[in-house]
Amino acid sequence: MKSLSPTDQLFLWLEKRQQPMHVGGLQLFSFPEDAPDDYVAQLAEQLRQQTQVTSPFDRRLDSRLAQPVWVHDDHLDLEHHFRFDALPTPGGVRELLRFVSAEHSHLMDRERPLWEFHLIEGLGNRQFALYSKIHHSLVDGVSAMRMFQRMLSTDPSQRNMPPIWALPRRRGRKTDDSQPSLWQTIGQILGASGKQLGTLPKVTRELLRTVNEARKDPAYDSIFHAPRCVLNEKITGSRRFAAQSYSLARIRGICQAFGTTVNDVVTAMCANALRTYLMNQDALPEKPLIAMVPVSLRKDDSAEGNQVGVILANLHTDEPDPVERLTKIHEGIRAAKDRYAHMSSEEIINYTAMMLSPAAFHLLTGLAPKWQTYNVVISNVPGPKETSYWNGAKLEGMYPVSIAMDRLALNMTLTSYNDQVEFGLIGCRRTLPSLQRMLDYLEEGLTELEQAAAR
Amino acid sequence: MKSLSPTDQLFLWLEKRQQPMHVGGLQLFSFPEDAPDDYVAQLAEQLRQQTQVTSPFDRRLDSRLAQPVWVHDDHLDLEHHFRFDALPTPGGVRELLRFVSAEHSHLMDRERPLWEFHLIEGLGNRQFALYSKIHHSLVDGVSAMRMFQRMLSTDPSQRNMPPIWALPRRRGRKTDDSQPSLWQTIGQILGASGKQLGTLPKVTRELLRTVNEARKDPAYDSIFHAPRCVLNEKITGSRRFAAQSYSLARIRGICQAFGTTVNDVVTAMCANALRTYLMNQDALPEKPLIAMVPVSLRKDDSAEGNQVGVILANLHTDEPDPVERLTKIHEGIRAAKDRYAHMSSEEIINYTAMMLSPAAFHLLTGLAPKWQTYNVVISNVPGPKETSYWNGAKLEGMYPVSIAMDRLALNMTLTSYNDQVEFGLIGCRRTLPSLQRMLDYLEEGLTELEQAAAR
Repeated sequence: MKSLSPTDQLFLWLEKRQQPMHVGGLQLFSFPEDAPDDYVAQLAEQLRQQTQVTSPFDRRLDSRLAQPVWVHDDHLDLEHHFRFDALPTPGGVRELLRFVSAEHSHLMDRERPLWEFHLIEGLGNRQFALYSKIHHSLVDGVSAMRMFQRMLSTDPSQRNMPPIWALPRRRGRKTDDSQPSLWQTIGQILGASGKQLGTLPKVTRELLRTVNEARKDPAYDSIFHAPRCVLNEKITGSRRFAAQSYSLARIRGICQAFGTTVNDVVTAMCANALRTYLMNQDALPEKPLIAMVPVSLRKDDSAEGNQVGVILANLHTDEPDPVERLTKIHEGIRAAKDRYAHMSSEEIINYTAMMLSPAAFHLLTGLAPKWQTYNVVISNVPGPKETSYWNGAKLEGMYPVSIAMDRLALNMTLTSYNDQVEFGLIGCRRTLPSLQRMLDYLEEGLTELEQAAAR
Repeated sequence: MKSLSPTDQLFLWLEKRQQPMHVGGLQLFSFPEDAPDDYVAQLAEQLRQQTQVTSPFDRRLDSRLAQPVWVHDDHLDLEHHFRFDALPTPGGVRELLRFVSAEHSHLMDRERPLWEFHLIEGLGNRQFALYSKIHHSLVDGVSAMRMFQRMLSTDPSQRNMPPIWALPRRRGRKTDDSQPSLWQTIGQILGASGKQLGTLPKVTRELLRTVNEARKDPAYDSIFHAPRCVLNEKITGSRRFAAQSYSLARIRGICQAFGTTVNDVVTAMCANALRTYLMNQDALPEKPLIAMVPVSLRKDDSAEGNQVGVILANLHTDEPDPVERLTKIHEGIRAAKDRYAHMSSEEIINYTAMMLSPAAFHLLTGLAPKWQTYNVVISNVPGPKETSYWNGAKLEGMYPVSIAMDRLALNMTLTSYNDQVEFGLIGCRRTLPSLQRMLDYLEEGLTELEQAAAR
């Protein structure tokens, strides 16, 4: 038996029918060279034998003294968690994305361990896919990515590699050293206030106190300035998932031409996608959109590892010129990083809390925001740097599948793999129709900048 | 805009994460003789063009003055409702049942019309399947079956036949002339009391009043006498679906040998399946299980059409001899029918209400029953009598997919088609592990009676 952390509890509180709180990942693999044609069916059969389920995948929710706890599930039914699925004809990317869109829309059964792992055949070209779905109360996105990396190897000849639910337990490793997210910030606010997280009303009261403190801050006006946008309406329970790989070499070429970082360029790609998508719907706000973006804060002389902060980045979606837009985004992100550079860790936490509290408050209460602090989440999860294999099957691409929420109908999460930047967009398919078109607009943003660089 | 009937509202009230309130159907078809190999993919493409969605499939829920109403969905997204899916290798019955089990477990999105229609390829033997899922607030099981029959034709050469969501509207037809179910009984209780159905507490108060009235009745003791059983525990959100066809000729052979009806024999098959399944789990109650069974009450001299009543049938699961068991079931059902024969319509309604109210009360309040009136629902929905086709594809089998509920973890629904009796079992897969074994026990029950008849 194990108590849930305050952050884990938040994900259970926030979950409702139209707002499932699970994260996912889609991985695309090619068959090992010597694999038979029925390779995926054989793999399914092997995976069905992997009944030794390790932590945290053996945990189900229970309650003790009205508090939620994790307990070991004594009747774990692997057939419920591991699913072998197939894509319909013609088995292309479109069918794969449709499959993930539908599966990611479904709430999981709280009476069981909150995860599913789908092995998907029918892709053609001797490829197959894995789609995994894990409740955010069980693992955060960064921990999930780490688990996937532990499942993989850079050695194509390695075999007998277990699936994620049967990985040997690693002892003495902290798994919560990830980026400060909206969630961890809420936890930090509460931790800093020295109060026990007991009930939802207590948390929201505490957040409101933080918001009211923030209003006394001179930076207040510059914080609560995101425009109203269709991205910030209430959502429904159905999702659209769109995913694509983009060449890191192409992005680096643009960085060299304009003196920007990779993060600046991917942010500009997102800005272009949002601008074009919203213009085509006649829904682009006059004022520029604001994105919540995690950035690396590592200083060269620090041995502290990856310290990551959250900034609110102006996407300059009102700027028609792509190079101007990139330059302004670059300057905005640099200024925000510079601000962090002169802050202590405690100041960073307070500042982040000030930025994120209004959104957290509205999420928890369900109230429509009076102040919109940001319109969209653009998140970046580190991925494997080298070509990776699972039981000899080469990983061709991996795409994060995140969470859409009320007032945050779109989440753009990206990761890196080998020489690729992998985008996964998840959104409410009612609030944001034809979301998949954003993939074209991401590509268009990249091409426009390449063409400008070539001039 | 259209108000919801009291019965329709009940299904919304009763729905929760672990208790979705949709009904479904699984149909198995073989390709038309001249069909190409990619027939199902072509059919999918044709169905995607069927964007003229007719009532009730164009309705979504909304609320007016805090009351739920149906409104026309102006942004109906057919891709959300019509899904083209595929079974994984080897594409057998097992994979098909797994698929239906998983899909039937998912709650639907209340912001959209509450139905899904899945076209399923990958079955092999030039066959395909349809799985449809419709919320019980939109149609009841009998109406759904009628709609499916309207979708079909006895003419194999007929083409351009629309799917269920695009059927031309039939005017001036009542669709609520079906059997008195648990739900309609609740409606009748309230109708009889002359009160408006406004809130859930009102309904449960009214039911409790009926239960308390029933306790004054001399028949009371004989009514509340179902044993406690694992079938009547709280359920989880995941389902197992099992389905099989049995030959009507075999069943008729047994009827002739023992002077029983078809309904007696299928009830005895269910009794054997429940007895063997529960014995294997060491969970068979000493006292016999009681099933709620709908029966035909038509008298030969009546032109009233199909009048159907509900009886509580003793399944005699304590009786080891299959012929003895069948004989006792036959006598019990005949006695219950005889009782109805001497009752007026109003008396039948009152009597049914008395039988069903305790279960309805416990369902609505979530309270554990003090008295269990029945352990399982065995329901029979009339199906097509002749070989039927849909756009030239021959219907090979059709299986009802009903609802499992708290305290009613198993539903056995059967229908007739041509020369077959089609069983669909739906249950909570945690409360009732390996439910699919009941199919073998149904067959075993049939074989045992055949062997006894041959002696």
